Formats: sequence, structure tokens, C-alpha cells
Amino acid sequence: MIKLRKKKMNNLLDLIDESKSISIISHINPDGDSLGSMLGLGLALKKIHPKVTIFVNDIIPGKYMFLPGLNHLIKYDLNKWQNYELTFVLDCGDEKRLDQSKALLKNSKRIVNIDHHISNDFFGDYNIIDTKASSTCEIIYYLLKERLNIEIDTDIATNLYVGIMTDTGSFKYDNTSPKTHITAANLLEAGIDTAEISLNLYQSNSIESMKFLGYILSNLELHSNDKVAIVYITKDLIEQFGIDPEETDSMINYARDLKGVEIAITLRELEVNLVKASFRAKGDFDVNKLANAFGGGGHKKASGAVLEGAIDDVKEHILNEIEKTKVSW
Amino acid sequence: MIKLRKKKMNNLLDLIDESKSISIISHINPDGDSLGSMLGLGLALKKIHPKVTIFVNDIIPGKYMFLPGLNHLIKYDLNKWQNYELTFVLDCGDEKRLDQSKALLKNSKRIVNIDHHISNDFFGDYNIIDTKASSTCEIIYYLLKERLNIEIDTDIATNLYVGIMTDTGSFKYDNTSPKTHITAANLLEAGIDTAEISLNLYQSNSIESMKFLGYILSNLELHSNDKVAIVYITKDLIEQFGIDPEETDSMINYARDLKGVEIAITLRELEVNLVKASFRAKGDFDVNKLANAFGGGGHKKASGAVLEGAIDDVKEHILNEIEKTKVSW
Repeated sequence: MIKLRKKKMNNLLDLIDESKSISIISHINPDGDSLGSMLGLGLALKKIHPKVTIFVNDIIPGKYMFLPGLNHLIKYDLNKWQNYELTFVLDCGDEKRLDQSKALLKNSKRIVNIDHHISNDFFGDYNIIDTKASSTCEIIYYLLKERLNIEIDTDIATNLYVGIMTDTGSFKYDNTSPKTHITAANLLEAGIDTAEISLNLYQSNSIESMKFLGYILSNLELHSNDKVAIVYITKDLIEQFGIDPEETDSMINYARDLKGVEIAITLRELEVNLVKASFRAKGDFDVNKLANAFGGGGHKKASGAVLEGAIDDVKEHILNEIEKTKVSW
Repeated sequence: MIKLRKKKMNNLLDLIDESKSISIISHINPDGDSLGSMLGLGLALKKIHPKVTIFVNDIIPGKYMFLPGLNHLIKYDLNKWQNYELTFVLDCGDEKRLDQSKALLKNSKRIVNIDHHISNDFFGDYNIIDTKASSTCEIIYYLLKERLNIEIDTDIATNLYVGIMTDTGSFKYDNTSPKTHITAANLLEAGIDTAEISLNLYQSNSIESMKFLGYILSNLELHSNDKVAIVYITKDLIEQFGIDPEETDSMINYARDLKGVEIAITLRELEVNLVKASFRAKGDFDVNKLANAFGGGGHKKASGAVLEGAIDDVKEHILNEIEKTKVSW
């Protein structure tokens, strides 16, 4: 289940002890699992090591601003930070998704790559990859508990719980295993405030984003015998409703969750003639292959690509590709 | 935690053995926990007893039509079924919510009342009330495992999991305890198909209901410094969108989940001058008291009442009552 490739890492604690400086990084466009795992591991390592730095590349989405230890996150600056003896790369299957902080890979003596994505290409000196884990936070939990023996206090537990909760769609997706629930039970025992977490993650929607969701749902388009649902998000709409584009990210789920829909697509205008397409699949259709056809990628059930062209042309282009590649409809 | 009042029930198995006929009933307007607990217990008892009948009063909502054993549910008919030696009443804090099947309480030799609602008034001969349990399904799980020693097969596990999942808002609400997650882990180990369950519960929305949700969100009303959100559902709208009124039940959650909103209200026109008001609270406001003011009831965070009057008048009436009773705004 857990694969270790390249060097054998008998004692991670020794590696941490031997390293004068440690950095922790993760993928761009931070989500619950990247932030939760960085902060969970970071707060834990800070208990046993004097020089631990956690880097982010982007702005943190508002709903995660309650995470304990958020003040420890430092915006990565290529010119300022370069050399760390040990770098942990979390929740990142692909070096490209490290953006600027990728420079740390070259300038670190040792890389520990911890991830749950099946696409992870083992770019670390040490690779702790568990594709059966619901999330990187689930892996970090057992790393802290069983290999590093660092106490999981309420702050660490809150971060790890948020990563597990968001990566499993609140324990709904089929990456949720019995072990995931056992982990959640243990994190609850650590005294986390689940009401506060739910309030921040799920009960703090802006009225603008809900009105926008209303517009989106009222204007859903169905194609290919109602098996494909399309959500349009133009720059004009985002401006008109006064919302943060990041708030639109989860809206594709409403399209996916329609009865009979097998592929949900969001087309979001990034700028004139540049469209970000996001794909979600519910049935057997492999949207990773669909994204590949447009130079993008992702997973079988969630992927994306950036396409050039007017939004209507991009739509036709994608629908044609789906018609070509569908198998069993 | 578990309270037993009135008669002491040393061995539930003996009581089951001694009874020639067993019926299982629950509250009107069936939900995941009432259906899951009736079917979970019912399928289990059928393994050890030849005469077990499960009654329902109403039509089963479409999203639960996948529950294993659903064919065992019998529509209660006051004229046909009256005498059972032993009746289990599940997930029902109040005899009134048994509707017609209440007749079974009089015509049964023994009543076992199993529930997790704090409002339960111990109307049974035996009462297994655990207000710390997330759901009646969670109580049934331990009853089967620890007291009845009946194997929890995949069909039983699926029913119990659905009750736990729906009553906890997919493990988000603060009735979710470490024990709830441990129970879920055990149910997953029993081989349930969580992808199929999620598909039915969360990913089978009708396009009509999503378009209607779009309309509702586009027309949300905020009052009392944006602390009260109101959703209007007139008979005309339901007809215009061609939806089942039951599909509107969860839409109040979108109003509750707005940042800053403390009370969400749905006003649904049942007929001319008759309005069903549903209340949800996020902060400290006690919507049970609010419902009481209009002859209704429920819990601190979820309640309802039926009011006479035009929908606009009902709205004013309720907003006035909120202004009167609010404490700390």
C-alpha cells in the first residue's frame, strides 16, 4: 500500500535531526488537503525542530483563513529563499504544480515526497505515496503518530481533519475507507471543534456567490441526450455578480450531481479567447483522457485544460471530442 | 447515556422470542434515519423471527428507493392491521408523529421505543433512548451487535449507514461523535457500496429541482440586518417548475449556510391561506421557541409550524415575532 522508492528511509526522525533547515511546500491553487497537510506537518515539526518554514505560492481561499497556524505560512519568493537541507513536498503528484517553489527541489539536499495521488511520479529522494489514503492529511496523521511520535494536538488535528473532510467531499467520495473514518474518530477525540470547522467550510457562503449559483443553475445546458451538463462562467458574469472566481470552483458539482449526467463541464473565461475547462465524471467516462486531448490532465473523474478560442467555439470543440471518444452511450 | 425507564429489560432477545408477532413503525414523512433504522432492524429480526412486519404511513421519497429490503415495507392500513404482541417504535420522539400507525401502540402487548431525540417522552414499555447517538441507526447498530448478536450483513449495513449519513449531514453536523465515525468504519467493512449510496442520495437531482433551486437562490430575501434569510415557495412556483414539493425540503440549507445568516426560513404554500414555515438556526437563536409561538415545534436548530394567512402576511408575522424574541443582535 505504501510504496517507498529509491532510497530506503529507515528513520525519518534521524533525517529531520540531521537537517539544519526544513521547508514544506505543496501545489499551486491551495485546497483543504494541501493547506491542512502543510500546517499539520509544519506545526508538528516545529515542536521538534527550530527551523521549519512553510511556503505557499498563492493567496489562501477565504474559507481556509480559520486554519490554526495560518500565520506560519510564508509567501514563496524565488529571490529570497533558496536553500533548505530538507524539503517536504506534500499532496503534489507533479513537480510542475509547484510553480516558483519548484526551485526548492534543486536547492535542497533531500526531498521527501508525500502524496496520495496515483499520478505521483516519485520525484523525491524519499517517496511516501499511499494511493489508498483518502488524502495527504490521512498519510500525515499516521506519519506523526506511528513514525515521528509527535503528539497530535487540537491545532494539528483541526488541520488534518479539514484536509480529510475536503478531499473526501465530507466522507462521501469513494476514497473514504474504514481507515479514513477511524482517523476522523481519532481527530475528533483530539478535541477539534467540528461545528466551527463546518461553519467555515460550508456555512459561510457569500450572498453574491449564492445568487451567482442561482444564475448558473437557472442557465444550465444539457447536451448529448442529457448526459453532458455545461456551466458557463464568462468574465462579464463574474464582474456583474461581484464574486471571486475561486468561489465558482465547486459549482461544477451541481452539474455533475444531476440525475443521468455523466460528464459535467465548466467553461470559465480567463481572458478574451482563453477558456479554462473543468471536467467531472460520474459514470465510467474518463475525463482525464478528455483533458489530455486538449493538453490538460488530472484524474479519471476530475480534470481540466486551458483552451484558446471564444467560449462558444471551445464548447463545440469539447462536445465534438466527447462524441468521438464516448464508448457506451 | 442510554436511559431505560419503566420496566427493566434484561434480555431483549427473550422478549422477541416470547412474542408471536412483531411490528416496526416510525414517524410520518419518512427520512433516511426512519427508513434506515426500520429496514436495518427489520431485516435483522427477520433472520431470527418468522413474523416481522414493517409499516410505513406515507410514500417513500424517490432517493431512498434503492434501500435494500424496501419491498418489505407495507403501507399501514388502520382497518387491516391492528394486533401485534411486540411493537418497535423507531426514531419517533412523539406518538403524534406516528399518524395512523399510532393505533398499534394501543393494540400491542409491549412497546419498545428506540430513539435519539432529546424530546422523546418515553412512551414505550421499554425505552432505549440515547440522545448522544447521531441517529437511531447508530443505536440500532449497537443493539444488533452487542445485545441481539445478529450478524450485520451488507443489506443491513447499507440501511444503517444511510440513516447515519443523512442524520449527520454526511458527518458534518455536531451530532457526529468519534463513535459515529467508528460505526461508519464498521459499516464500510461490512462491504457496503458507498459510491452507489452517494449516487442515490446526492447525485440524482432532477434538472427541474436544480432549475428551481436556481430560482430560489436568485430570489433569496434577507431581513433583520441580513441575519434572517427567507425562501418563498408558492404553489404556482411548484407547478411552474414541475417539481415534487418534497424536493424543496433541503433548499432551506442554502439559506442557512449564508455567511452571517442566523435564521433561515422557508415559507411553503400548502393551499390558499395555509403556509408551512420551516426554521433553521445556525447561531444561538432557538427556533424551537419560535415555532412554539405559532403552535409548531421541533428542535433548537430545526423546527416548523403551519400558519394560516396569505404568504406575505405570514412572513410579516414571523419577522415581528423574531424581532420580539431576539436577544443579542
